[in-house]
Amino acid sequence: MNSPIVNRRDLDFLLYELLDVERLTERERYAEHNRETFDAAIETAHRVAVDHLYPHNRKNDLQEPEFDGDTVTTIPEVKQALDVYCDTGLIAAAQDFDRGGMQLPATIAQTCTAIAKGANVGTFAYIGLTVAATNLILAHGSDEQIERYTPHMLSGRFFGTMCLSEPQAGSSLGDLRTRATPQDDGSYRIQGNKIWISAGDHELSENIVHMVLARLPDAPPGVKGISLFIVPKYLVNDDGSLGRRNDVKLAGLIHKMGYRGTTSTMLNFGESGDCVGYMVGGPGDGLKCMFHMMNEARIGVGLGAVMLGYGGYLHSRDYALERRQGRAPGEKDPTTPQRLLAEHADVRRMLLAQKSYVEGGLALGLYCATLVDDERTHPDASARADAARQLAILTPIIKSWPSDYCLRANDLAIQILGGYGYTREYPVEQYFRDNRLNPIHEGTHGIQAQDLLGRKVRQEDGAAFRCLVDAMRRTADDVDRSGPAAMAGHADALRRALDTLCDTTQALATVAETGDQERYLANASYYLEMTGHIVMAWLWLRQGITAADATPATDDDRAFYQGKLAACRYFFNVELPKVHYHADLLRQVEDTPLTTEPAWL
Amino acid sequence: MNSPIVNRRDLDFLLYELLDVERLTERERYAEHNRETFDAAIETAHRVAVDHLYPHNRKNDLQEPEFDGDTVTTIPEVKQALDVYCDTGLIAAAQDFDRGGMQLPATIAQTCTAIAKGANVGTFAYIGLTVAATNLILAHGSDEQIERYTPHMLSGRFFGTMCLSEPQAGSSLGDLRTRATPQDDGSYRIQGNKIWISAGDHELSENIVHMVLARLPDAPPGVKGISLFIVPKYLVNDDGSLGRRNDVKLAGLIHKMGYRGTTSTMLNFGESGDCVGYMVGGPGDGLKCMFHMMNEARIGVGLGAVMLGYGGYLHSRDYALERRQGRAPGEKDPTTPQRLLAEHADVRRMLLAQKSYVEGGLALGLYCATLVDDERTHPDASARADAARQLAILTPIIKSWPSDYCLRANDLAIQILGGYGYTREYPVEQYFRDNRLNPIHEGTHGIQAQDLLGRKVRQEDGAAFRCLVDAMRRTADDVDRSGPAAMAGHADALRRALDTLCDTTQALATVAETGDQERYLANASYYLEMTGHIVMAWLWLRQGITAADATPATDDDRAFYQGKLAACRYFFNVELPKVHYHADLLRQVEDTPLTTEPAWL
Repeated sequence: MNSPIVNRRDLDFLLYELLDVERLTERERYAEHNRETFDAAIETAHRVAVDHLYPHNRKNDLQEPEFDGDTVTTIPEVKQALDVYCDTGLIAAAQDFDRGGMQLPATIAQTCTAIAKGANVGTFAYIGLTVAATNLILAHGSDEQIERYTPHMLSGRFFGTMCLSEPQAGSSLGDLRTRATPQDDGSYRIQGNKIWISAGDHELSENIVHMVLARLPDAPPGVKGISLFIVPKYLVNDDGSLGRRNDVKLAGLIHKMGYRGTTSTMLNFGESGDCVGYMVGGPGDGLKCMFHMMNEARIGVGLGAVMLGYGGYLHSRDYALERRQGRAPGEKDPTTPQRLLAEHADVRRMLLAQKSYVEGGLALGLYCATLVDDERTHPDASARADAARQLAILTPIIKSWPSDYCLRANDLAIQILGGYGYTREYPVEQYFRDNRLNPIHEGTHGIQAQDLLGRKVRQEDGAAFRCLVDAMRRTADDVDRSGPAAMAGHADALRRALDTLCDTTQALATVAETGDQERYLANASYYLEMTGHIVMAWLWLRQGITAADATPATDDDRAFYQGKLAACRYFFNVELPKVHYHADLLRQVEDTPLTTEPAWL
Repeated sequence: MNSPIVNRRDLDFLLYELLDVERLTERERYAEHNRETFDAAIETAHRVAVDHLYPHNRKNDLQEPEFDGDTVTTIPEVKQALDVYCDTGLIAAAQDFDRGGMQLPATIAQTCTAIAKGANVGTFAYIGLTVAATNLILAHGSDEQIERYTPHMLSGRFFGTMCLSEPQAGSSLGDLRTRATPQDDGSYRIQGNKIWISAGDHELSENIVHMVLARLPDAPPGVKGISLFIVPKYLVNDDGSLGRRNDVKLAGLIHKMGYRGTTSTMLNFGESGDCVGYMVGGPGDGLKCMFHMMNEARIGVGLGAVMLGYGGYLHSRDYALERRQGRAPGEKDPTTPQRLLAEHADVRRMLLAQKSYVEGGLALGLYCATLVDDERTHPDASARADAARQLAILTPIIKSWPSDYCLRANDLAIQILGGYGYTREYPVEQYFRDNRLNPIHEGTHGIQAQDLLGRKVRQEDGAAFRCLVDAMRRTADDVDRSGPAAMAGHADALRRALDTLCDTTQALATVAETGDQERYLANASYYLEMTGHIVMAWLWLRQGITAADATPATDDDRAFYQGKLAACRYFFNVELPKVHYHADLLRQVEDTPLTTEPAWL
């Protein structure tokens, strides 16, 4: 295969033919960029991914980090790869030029990140968390905090973490108990236990900057009482040198099913009563600060899920094009040569399903990234507002749809390889294990469903919902007006699905009006999956239109566009009809779970 | 939890209330048995499972067998547990009294096996394969072979294996190349390489009896040229003592995603030209011999998948009944206590889904086992023939439906535990990894689909299909005649699904008549899933009827029956409607895979 991570032709198609990201270079912020600078960043990310991240992806799974009670040890390839990545400057891909960044659009930065995740999600997580922590400080920190921490984080000298969960407070963040006690010097003393802290301890960087959610002594209960703190592993002197070791103690490593290259830690803050922290933003602003970064973080999780699916797809496709097994149905002569796996209809079905999930998921993730760019830099204020609305409603979908369906893609990749796929001698089982984290972290599937139906659909009296539905309907209507004719049937199917979506949402609204929130949200998971499928059908229609209208330059190009049209057809024929199954459950307000007492289970 | 393996109340319900296995004691073969002897066997299996198999299930996953080039080492708990199991005599549960067996019905023997698998599938596989190999020799071996090997296998002194796959011949067994050359003494010299041989080498028994498929020099190509051979690791003298080491060499261990406690091996037969084998059955009878055991083997795989799902269900249920997280939708007061997970509608949905899959799967597996008993021992010849027909058509379904849906159950169990579920500190992720093998081995999902639609539905001009459909329709019609009234709606729904099944099968038959086998079988996977769901709805209707008609003796009993009714309702409301989605795809003869060229992927 050309790349084990992503089909570069597909990436070009999505970025430049489907989403026209070159248009972003017309904006002032990106005026110094052009397609060449975008491609150079992507090419750099891909080179580092293939040369430095991908080669130790399996080794990092088999030899996961170890803690001897004193130090965490990782295989040397991890630090080598991270150093190379940091040296490229890609860690600051989206930052301003005057912070030493590349000032690239979010779409290009997310593309680079996605490629790195596809190569080695376990190793790359150290970078991903550092970028997220840096963004938090840049957005909400004081000038002094920005100055003290972020240059070292953007250079890769310090890494970062996000310390949210506690043993009694996972999905229910409002129940966290970590305390922050103000000191005379303006700092705080932090005391509490955090769990699931990825990259929470290691020797890969000189320092670790923990972003910790905690409560002030007089804070109100619940989410309103949560504030955000910087808690460095080593205090940082004014000149950037390291001071004393802070009172943050690694209580132990957690051993995961996948994602094994990333340490998952339990951290004790202030065991000796001497853990220093610094507030970011104001008292009670903790969740608001976090939520400010959430859209991008959730796009990142969704794209990570896509890329693990993508790797499995590419591997199982190449396998199916090489491995011979069995013969055509009805072929009775056992002396004929065996057939390629890819010639069996059922194998091709499994490949098409994967292709439709991973290429569709990539299209959705990159589209959401363009909404981030439009929200920030579109010259037109109403376009910015529309982008913000679409982004709000699409965020739970880009987080959850690929976490569900690209995991299914990984399952199909294993199935195509058969016994081989079930072994650690082949990569597909690792993708499956790694990907199983994505429906859990950064808000579980159930949390995303509640976010979509409980908040996003209803916010601003449904404005975000209407904004998204209108955009989807416009694509279908455009097909009627200006073709391509080959897409007319799919456009019709999308319109019917949109009618179903609107009817279902309306029917649910009448449930909400009764005030019975439990009943309104009981089937939120079905609503999430249904809406996700409709959005995905929309993106496949858009890809189908682009492919049908394209003029292929070469035979390879022709095959590429035919592949897009086949996957589009597959999605409309096989996947989209599931929408009507989910709509029926929603309209009936299927209530078996509500009428089942826990004691009966 | 009372048992971490299975709800004993559910087992009693299925065996005695639903399937009335006590009726088997009226048959001559089981005349010395009664419910007490059945229960004693099950209780013994359960005790060994809980005391000896379950405790090292995780350790056997973490410390998988190792090969140092000379010897395979396993953790000591494995041999201890296997010895205890063999000492109980359960390894010969289904064998004749005069072979030292317990002469129990297949249904009870499968129940015992299922319990052991649920406790530790990795360790138990050594027993399971030995039973299968013993059955092969007993059914097809000469008196001399039976005498020489089987007493030692039934005592656990020798273990067994099944050596079918080769690197170039997995699903396509007809392409196997291992040669068997006849010798003057009536024995054969075996030469070839086998792969995926579970339990292929170890130090857990004195000897290993490999059942090997190979070709005679003059054999015709394809499956007709395959014969079956006994190839012992050590030759066995007339007095049962061990002779010289045979020329069977462990080429290496394969490292799997799950099922890690069972060695998976590559074996080289006859590397030094001195591998002795003995033919079982006649030349070319190899596959016929194997297929003779296949129904039971595939029921065993299906029940194994069920039990891994069952363990995950019980664990996640207990977790959801203990763990508090979050509050009711609309509850704004953060000072109220957190709610049990099981009080959240979405968690209860995930529990009901699991319950419907695993208890439904167990019902199907045990029902299929009663068909094995009826096929063999029913006093009425036409009832025996009907049982054989139902068994033939249900075999691909019991193999594949639980391998698919009980794996989904494992996925839901992880999701309920959230971050905890993703760690190796909790058991649910191991169930998920272990269970992922089941859609692959003993005939992949795709092979089962072809078996169902390509062979079983069409055999005897559809007699097996009609026999199954008639049985399902009778249950629905009985509800109309004699209630219970609470099941009338479900009976209607089942009848509609049966109409859909018959219409779809008829529509496909017209495709078959065109002679285009490729097209006829292109959507066999959808057909398999659709038929599986209808069969499962039938078993849920039968469970619902039994539960609705029952008179609960205690509050616990009342809760148990309510749970059955809730899971029944869940299956009919949420799962059965998927049938119509699949039927649409089948009736349209969805052909995107057929029209997609491999080069476009």
